[in-house]
Amino acid sequence: MNKIINIAVVGLGQVGIYLLNELNIKKKDIELKTGKKINIVAISARSINKKRQFKINKNIFFKNPLEIFNKVKVDILFEAIGQSDGISKKLVETALKNKIHVITPNKALISKHGNELARIAELNKVNLEFEASVAGGIPILRSIKEGLATNKISKVYGILNGTSNYILSEMENSNQSFVYVLKKAQKLGYAEPGNPKLDLNGFDAFAKVRILSALAFNSKISKYKCLMEGIEKIELKDIKIASQLGLRIKLLGISELKNNHLFETVHPCLVSKKSYIGNVTGVMNAVILEGKPVGESILQGEGAGPGPTSSALLSDLLSILRGNIKNPLGVSVSRLKTLKNYNVNNYTNSLYLRFEVKDKPGVLSQITNRLAKYKISIKRIIQTPDKKNSKATIVIITHKTSELNCLNCLTIFKNNKNLLKNPAKIRLLD
Amino acid sequence: MNKIINIAVVGLGQVGIYLLNELNIKKKDIELKTGKKINIVAISARSINKKRQFKINKNIFFKNPLEIFNKVKVDILFEAIGQSDGISKKLVETALKNKIHVITPNKALISKHGNELARIAELNKVNLEFEASVAGGIPILRSIKEGLATNKISKVYGILNGTSNYILSEMENSNQSFVYVLKKAQKLGYAEPGNPKLDLNGFDAFAKVRILSALAFNSKISKYKCLMEGIEKIELKDIKIASQLGLRIKLLGISELKNNHLFETVHPCLVSKKSYIGNVTGVMNAVILEGKPVGESILQGEGAGPGPTSSALLSDLLSILRGNIKNPLGVSVSRLKTLKNYNVNNYTNSLYLRFEVKDKPGVLSQITNRLAKYKISIKRIIQTPDKKNSKATIVIITHKTSELNCLNCLTIFKNNKNLLKNPAKIRLLD
Repeated sequence: MNKIINIAVVGLGQVGIYLLNELNIKKKDIELKTGKKINIVAISARSINKKRQFKINKNIFFKNPLEIFNKVKVDILFEAIGQSDGISKKLVETALKNKIHVITPNKALISKHGNELARIAELNKVNLEFEASVAGGIPILRSIKEGLATNKISKVYGILNGTSNYILSEMENSNQSFVYVLKKAQKLGYAEPGNPKLDLNGFDAFAKVRILSALAFNSKISKYKCLMEGIEKIELKDIKIASQLGLRIKLLGISELKNNHLFETVHPCLVSKKSYIGNVTGVMNAVILEGKPVGESILQGEGAGPGPTSSALLSDLLSILRGNIKNPLGVSVSRLKTLKNYNVNNYTNSLYLRFEVKDKPGVLSQITNRLAKYKISIKRIIQTPDKKNSKATIVIITHKTSELNCLNCLTIFKNNKNLLKNPAKIRLLD
Repeated sequence: MNKIINIAVVGLGQVGIYLLNELNIKKKDIELKTGKKINIVAISARSINKKRQFKINKNIFFKNPLEIFNKVKVDILFEAIGQSDGISKKLVETALKNKIHVITPNKALISKHGNELARIAELNKVNLEFEASVAGGIPILRSIKEGLATNKISKVYGILNGTSNYILSEMENSNQSFVYVLKKAQKLGYAEPGNPKLDLNGFDAFAKVRILSALAFNSKISKYKCLMEGIEKIELKDIKIASQLGLRIKLLGISELKNNHLFETVHPCLVSKKSYIGNVTGVMNAVILEGKPVGESILQGEGAGPGPTSSALLSDLLSILRGNIKNPLGVSVSRLKTLKNYNVNNYTNSLYLRFEVKDKPGVLSQITNRLAKYKISIKRIIQTPDKKNSKATIVIITHKTSELNCLNCLTIFKNNKNLLKNPAKIRLLD
């Protein structure tokens, strides 16, 4: 590698522009730590004139990022556009094929096309680095690939979506509804103003789970979606009841080997208020890793925002500048395992069930009889009458039961006229 | 680097023998991840016949570890003897000078001779890796050098000694004295049976603080001991009173830049029971890092024991096998800063002071007058009489004051006949 390294940054949104500024102010530090001088030779974005936090050098601006490769010599490309396909994929592919190292925070791209892109990178002996794609500033991918390498990892899980975690924390703190808090989150920049759906429905966290699984289990990035639920259906009522029970609702991403089958899931979980994970609040992310011989490891930090993301992007840059040419997925793609998927029907949990019912005799016994028929035993039951409206809320905490059994058991209530709405169901973490 | 890598392991105590076993069972995994075959060509310990957890191959045993280099070709040496000088230093030096990579969990050696050894490693273009020297299985050194590289770190602190943390937790849980719990810790293998002093007086944690500082601030490992206090003087009484106040005592190691001066310290701290650090219990270690732009990062895991230590040692091995030749201290020793030390007299904290006094009129006012004279204002005061013995306990929580001012203030009580013993002082974490 030469002493002077040419860099291109494509995508000048919040992350890209912050990164550009960091690259400029950290030049000396980077040289101190790697012996390399970095030189930004090209930048690209949809609009040259958009108002940005930091000034850009218009002399090196490209409207079409693919033209960069024809006009200037680039050693390392930062892709910060963020699409799962389209121009992001094309750009990354083209760069790798031109023997240009690529660094990206794009979890949508990596979780969808990571296997293929890693193969291209290996073939061309360049790096494809994506530390920033999972849990922002937390160096979790590097820790799995390097710091905890050779551990036999059995489970990785955690809070992987800062937006959801902020909303759940804020609903509890402010006693406000999901819709109200979402608007607040959008104002504060914690949720996307246009379409926050991918953060709220679990999709974003699921992409991260997939990347974590591949690294933790030395397996190909899976295509199969096991169980994905977001926080959109969580009501303030559930948060309040949970709190009375000493519990808190968290959106968890979980990746686990169950009998050598891959189990990947994202769903809201009830966790103890006293547990570690129950106390990771606001936009914080946390990843918990169970491995042998290391035991349980926890990494926590800010999961999103241009600062933490830039921290991860620059750590990727340093790794490349130090000459660490590595397989993007830790192990060569050709040697990654293809794991079978665990059957979600067998996923077993204690459940929190909330029924909103007409306040009349026999309703409770209808519910408990039905549960008994499916051998779902009850750990705890709380009935709260709302006499004025002739309604009642029945909350049941069950002992463990499988997804399938629960599903079968609850179907009957869909058309039950004594139920005012479908029962709410939240799983408890073991 | 050849495809076959020759390894020597010196020191076959708890860590060494566990490592040897791990190396044997993880050979395939290591080959998968690095493309290298490892081959253990030499082992050494004081006694060949000592009873060990795993069998050793006596054909490759050396009584004198220094002879290994004359007899067999070694690529990588694991030093697991653990002395700060003597044979440990000699062995590591000799290996590095013979262009052999060295991996060690030896914090005493690195904190004392790290600058010099790093220089020798750089000169000979080999690695000196010591991830296991700080916080066991937590990949904290790698995270600072790589995952969080280019962040401007202002503070690193945490629970760095599992023995002390276990004893403090267990005193609280079991309501037993320091001496009793120490014996229990020794039985369980959490404290050294012979001489546990270095864990209890803060020395072990201080060595780790020194290594953390150098990496976090790109400075030479300091020689200056700023403030070192262990947990030996912590009484069950203090733990109980702290608990009533919603506080918990933790032995913290802290490294911080204060006005560009290095401030390194180890001392017991009162922290909120509700805080993250207040809930890291038992033998767990945790490191909290404040950096820009990443924000606050937390890493937690098992801090000691052969399992976590081996995890870290093997991560060092993988780093070397992947060809990551790096400066041991992140930056070349010749370019490391030499930081001036912060004057500990100016260290400012709120304080917990406990006075054991004769129960007679005027004693409390003697104490409060003295504090007032030194402008130490009182946040909270709790007097508990022990009428039967004509004694009383006075606990005062002060507002912030400097070390020097507090020292001057408290001197007078040394010879005060109304005081039954020297006042206990514990600092509060901001």
